[in-house]
Amino acid sequence: MKRLELIGVEGLPEVRPGDDLGRLIGSRSQLAQDDVLVVAQKVVSKSEGRLISLHNVTASGEAVRIASNLVAHPDPRMVQVILDESVRVLRSNRVLITETRHGFVCANGGVDHSNVPGEDTVTLLPEDPDASANRLRGRLVELTGAEVGVIVADTFGRPWRLGIVNVALGVAGLPALIDLRGSVDDVGKALQATVLAVADELAAAAGLVMGKTARTPAVIIRGLSMHGSGSGRDVVRPAAEDLFR
Amino acid sequence: MKRLELIGVEGLPEVRPGDDLGRLIGSRSQLAQDDVLVVAQKVVSKSEGRLISLHNVTASGEAVRIASNLVAHPDPRMVQVILDESVRVLRSNRVLITETRHGFVCANGGVDHSNVPGEDTVTLLPEDPDASANRLRGRLVELTGAEVGVIVADTFGRPWRLGIVNVALGVAGLPALIDLRGSVDDVGKALQATVLAVADELAAAAGLVMGKTARTPAVIIRGLSMHGSGSGRDVVRPAAEDLFR
Repeated sequence: MKRLELIGVEGLPEVRPGDDLGRLIGSRSQLAQDDVLVVAQKVVSKSEGRLISLHNVTASGEAVRIASNLVAHPDPRMVQVILDESVRVLRSNRVLITETRHGFVCANGGVDHSNVPGEDTVTLLPEDPDASANRLRGRLVELTGAEVGVIVADTFGRPWRLGIVNVALGVAGLPALIDLRGSVDDVGKALQATVLAVADELAAAAGLVMGKTARTPAVIIRGLSMHGSGSGRDVVRPAAEDLFR
Repeated sequence: MKRLELIGVEGLPEVRPGDDLGRLIGSRSQLAQDDVLVVAQKVVSKSEGRLISLHNVTASGEAVRIASNLVAHPDPRMVQVILDESVRVLRSNRVLITETRHGFVCANGGVDHSNVPGEDTVTLLPEDPDASANRLRGRLVELTGAEVGVIVADTFGRPWRLGIVNVALGVAGLPALIDLRGSVDDVGKALQATVLAVADELAAAAGLVMGKTARTPAVIIRGLSMHGSGSGRDVVRPAAEDLFR
C-alpha cells in the first residue's frame, strides 16, 4: 500500500542572519535516506540575511502612487522594495502582483513582513532559491549522512481560485516536474498533457503541517522514492508561452 | 510533533455507472474518525454515469473551428462536449481553457478521455461535486461509523506555473478555506491576506499518492483535526473579483 508520512520539524528558535539552518533543522529531526525536507522560504531568507529595514528605503513617486491604489494600504517604502525585487508589474490596482527576478508571479514580489521581528523589517525571497535548496541539502547530507531532497517553499495566491497554497521556489535532489506524456494509463491509452508538478504538490502537502502561525518552518516527507534532479525554475512557465501574463 | 499520514486506497475495479463507490472504497480501507478521504473525480464521475460516447455527439461549426486551432488536435466532437459543459471560453488558441458551469476555470472544461475504457468515451465533471462529496461522505459514515471528511479532486493546470496539481472540486465535512486574517503570527503581528486553501492543499497532497496511472483513485489523510463545513464553491474566486478572467 502506498503510504506517505509528513512530520513537522518544531522548536526552532527565531532564525537570524548567518545561522546554520542545516544544523537547526538537522538537530531537531531524524532525517532518513530519501526523505524530502520542505522548508519555508521565510527561515531560509532570514538565515541568508535577506531582510530589509524600511528605515533605509526611500519611496519613489511611483511607489507612493501604487501604494495609494492598494486595499491593504501598505507603506510606500514596502511597495518600493517590491518594485526593486520585480521585473514586471502585472496588476497594481487593489492588489500588487508582480513578476520577480526569478520569474515567479506572485503578490508583493514575495516581500513580506509577517513572522518577522521588528516593526519595519521585511523579508525578501532568497536571491537564488535553487542555490539555497542545494546549500541546505549539502549541509543536511553532511550532518546526517542521509541523501535527502530539499524544497524551499512559499505560499502564493492563484488566479481563478481563492486562498493561498504552498508552492516550490527552489528544489534540490529531486525532480520538480514528472513528465508522463507518452506513458500509458490504466486502460492502455497514451496520457496527453500530463506533466505532474510534484514539487508543488510536495510543498502544498507540507503547507498542511506548517500552517502559518505555528512555529513549524520545515516538514519531512517520507515514503517517496523520487530520484533525479530538478529546479524551481522548471516550474516557471516561460513568459512567452504564458497566456495570462 | 505534528504528523500526518497519507494512505493510498488501492485495488478498486474499473468503476461503472451505478456502482456503490462508498462500498468499493470503504471495503478496501480502514477509515477512522476525522480522516479525510480524497477521491479522484474520475471514479466519482464514472459511478454517477457522467460519461458521454462521442458517437452520440455532433460537432457544431464552432467546435470544428476551435478544434483546428488546438495543438492536441482533438476530435471536434470532444470540443463540442467541452463547449456544452462550459459557460465561457477564456482561451481557444493552442489550448482550450473554459469556465465550467460550476465556475471552475480549467483546460477542456474538465472533460477527459484518459483512464476511460472505450475509444470514444469521455468523462464529464460531476454535475455538483459538493453533492457528490456529501453523498459519498454519508455512505462512508453509514458503512464505517467514522465521521470522515470527503474531497472530490481533479488535476488542473495553472497560469504562470507549469505542470498540473490536484485541486478540490467538491468538499464535505471539512472547511475548504481557513481564514487566518486577524489572527496573530509568531512575532505578534496581525496576519493579513492569509486565507489558506486547505482543501486544495489536501487534494495536492493526495495527488502525490494517486499519481496518474496507478490505480489509486482515493487517498486517506489521517492526523488532521479539521472541523466545520465547506464547499468546493468556496474556493472559486468570484468572476467579478478575478483579475485574470
